[in-house]
Amino acid sequence: MQDWIFEQAEHTRGCSYPLGFRVAGCSCGIKPSGKPDLATVVADQPCDAAAVFTRNNIPGAPIVIGKRHVADAKLQAIIVNAGISNVATGKAGEEDAIAMCRHAADALGIEAGLVLPSSTGVIGVPLPMDKIAPGIATLLSRLDSGAEADAAAAEAILTTDLVRKLAATQIQLDGKPARIGAMAKGSGMIAPNMATMLCYITTDANIAPALLQQALTHAVNQSFNRISIDSDTSTSDTVAVLANGLAGNRRIESDDADYQTFLATLTALCRELAFQIVKDGEGVTRMMRVIVENAATLEDANTVAKTIIDSPLFKCALHGADPNWGRLVAALGRSGAGFATDQFAIRIGEITVGEHGRLQPLSPEQREQLQRTMRQTQVTLTITLNAGDASADWLGCDLSYDYVRINAEYTT
Amino acid sequence: MQDWIFEQAEHTRGCSYPLGFRVAGCSCGIKPSGKPDLATVVADQPCDAAAVFTRNNIPGAPIVIGKRHVADAKLQAIIVNAGISNVATGKAGEEDAIAMCRHAADALGIEAGLVLPSSTGVIGVPLPMDKIAPGIATLLSRLDSGAEADAAAAEAILTTDLVRKLAATQIQLDGKPARIGAMAKGSGMIAPNMATMLCYITTDANIAPALLQQALTHAVNQSFNRISIDSDTSTSDTVAVLANGLAGNRRIESDDADYQTFLATLTALCRELAFQIVKDGEGVTRMMRVIVENAATLEDANTVAKTIIDSPLFKCALHGADPNWGRLVAALGRSGAGFATDQFAIRIGEITVGEHGRLQPLSPEQREQLQRTMRQTQVTLTITLNAGDASADWLGCDLSYDYVRINAEYTT
Repeated sequence: MQDWIFEQAEHTRGCSYPLGFRVAGCSCGIKPSGKPDLATVVADQPCDAAAVFTRNNIPGAPIVIGKRHVADAKLQAIIVNAGISNVATGKAGEEDAIAMCRHAADALGIEAGLVLPSSTGVIGVPLPMDKIAPGIATLLSRLDSGAEADAAAAEAILTTDLVRKLAATQIQLDGKPARIGAMAKGSGMIAPNMATMLCYITTDANIAPALLQQALTHAVNQSFNRISIDSDTSTSDTVAVLANGLAGNRRIESDDADYQTFLATLTALCRELAFQIVKDGEGVTRMMRVIVENAATLEDANTVAKTIIDSPLFKCALHGADPNWGRLVAALGRSGAGFATDQFAIRIGEITVGEHGRLQPLSPEQREQLQRTMRQTQVTLTITLNAGDASADWLGCDLSYDYVRINAEYTT
Repeated sequence: MQDWIFEQAEHTRGCSYPLGFRVAGCSCGIKPSGKPDLATVVADQPCDAAAVFTRNNIPGAPIVIGKRHVADAKLQAIIVNAGISNVATGKAGEEDAIAMCRHAADALGIEAGLVLPSSTGVIGVPLPMDKIAPGIATLLSRLDSGAEADAAAAEAILTTDLVRKLAATQIQLDGKPARIGAMAKGSGMIAPNMATMLCYITTDANIAPALLQQALTHAVNQSFNRISIDSDTSTSDTVAVLANGLAGNRRIESDDADYQTFLATLTALCRELAFQIVKDGEGVTRMMRVIVENAATLEDANTVAKTIIDSPLFKCALHGADPNWGRLVAALGRSGAGFATDQFAIRIGEITVGEHGRLQPLSPEQREQLQRTMRQTQVTLTITLNAGDASADWLGCDLSYDYVRINAEYTT
């Protein structure tokens, strides 16, 4: 099973690390704090593109327009604002999303259909286009590549996030070096499906769009679709990848060795960013990795993991470093997964707390070890169902006073 | 739509209010605090009986035994302990549940199969039968009817509850007075399905067991299955009703006017207790009633209501008295219910915050009124989907610092 932490990732590099991409971030006055709230990713030429979007039935206007613009698998730029999400804003909201694309496209001298729009923030409020239009002009005057520009762009897409989320790496395709870079945001309202946050990925690999979409969907299913901070799926989630082919590798057109390399690397990069998102989750003080083994089906494995990850009671126990395996049993039982009730086993860290469907008394030494395990900042729970050979691993976090504070004091 | 508060309910009366029932509560030393932890309801004669149990796939041992004992629709006594739930305890746990019934049955001189066992509390710990066996003897020596005995029994089934939950009322059946009384517990791990708490109901009405079961299932679906404190379905939930026929009414054998009277009253009583449970929910400072109107199907109406009730983000907003309708939109969108995104409307109290799928700007006066509404201890949200004619109403609560504290400090 692939780990969540991708050692190769260079956290200081982002979307401008691959050849032929420039980025920028600036403040245009949407956030009352004056913090950066407008970002862009621009390619020197039209790119093959793929994207996945939220499955929320009330998607934001940028999702509606973005799906239209990526339908031909071609994009050259991404324009994003933070602070207001342009959701539940009706036809006027869609016109604003189109206008954002047109402002950027006009300044860049490209078609508006090559621009992907994104917005994140408060729901139900119209975008201040009088600020965004001049903001886009300022933004595009700052386009650059390198760590500083990447940091500025990654900063400008944040909302309640505390830290920027960047990753980048290099691989060999067809004997040539190719690069993948990415930035992401997400801290609350994080749950599948779909991707539950914003993530923009660039690569100079040469890959056909059908395979690019296939790789992205797989990577997202193994990463952003396996994390949950608070079980609330957002209305604005977008993960997009732009590939410009400048690495000069023979175009990936089939499921060959190069495709597998690209796929594994893209997946690892997305898992790295998913890890960063959970680590920076609202109020998070402790993370949990839930591994479900020997489930009857993949769906069962995912359901059990997600039910545990989202259990308010176990999340509170995790916050209090309490190894409350009773709550694990309750969550497992209500998950709806199929298994024999006298067959499952539960491990917290290295300690087996239940076997053959029965919780077992622990020795004082085991209790002490369990306490030490629970006080770590990352706790691994392993649930073995003995019902088949499907497995899944998810990332989640505790439910803390600060999560309540952040979300009780958030101003509508 | 029936209200949640049942004005007729006499909160100081419980299971011994109907003729022919006695109850008791005492402490046998399961709870380290020394608080009462053993309760019983005993009828003077075998009763027609019906019950509903948790749908959690890892039910407690008392659920397994209880289902067996109520299978013939006959019960004469209920024996309950609080503090330890006898869940995930294997075959030994089932033997303990049977032993609890046998101890009570032997003392009462009845068949063990006429006794329903219940346990609530910590999961995965064996019952201290050396305390429970002598405890049952003490308990049965205190059997009595009246407010004092009812209070003692209702007290002894509590865990993290702060207050006792009792209700009782009188109706006319076949021109004769008949009584229904009940006690309940529940404060955390409260979500459908099934009933998510303990509730014992007694009545001296004369009613055939098939209709008694039908009435109970309906009442539970309209009450305990429409509340959620924290979306965690427990492993021990049980609602049972015993009917001894002492009211002397012509036996209810069909869906006639008397059945309808009984059904409506039982439902109202269960809704009253459901209301009391949410009001006493762990850390609750504010309740929400979510009414979903004009849904395409009843399932859709229930799904939308439950998704909103369980949204951690909206629960935090409710705690902070923040009318965050954006989070209502996000929850509505991810619920999976079918509706046109340009047709739904949202009302908070009397204020319409969204119509035709679009959130609308509020006047300063409306904002002020909304703030006043949100600061009440009970807030009503009305979601109109304009997709059909199904409706549902649910009760939920806020997510507070105290919920986290209670569940982070809980000792396993």
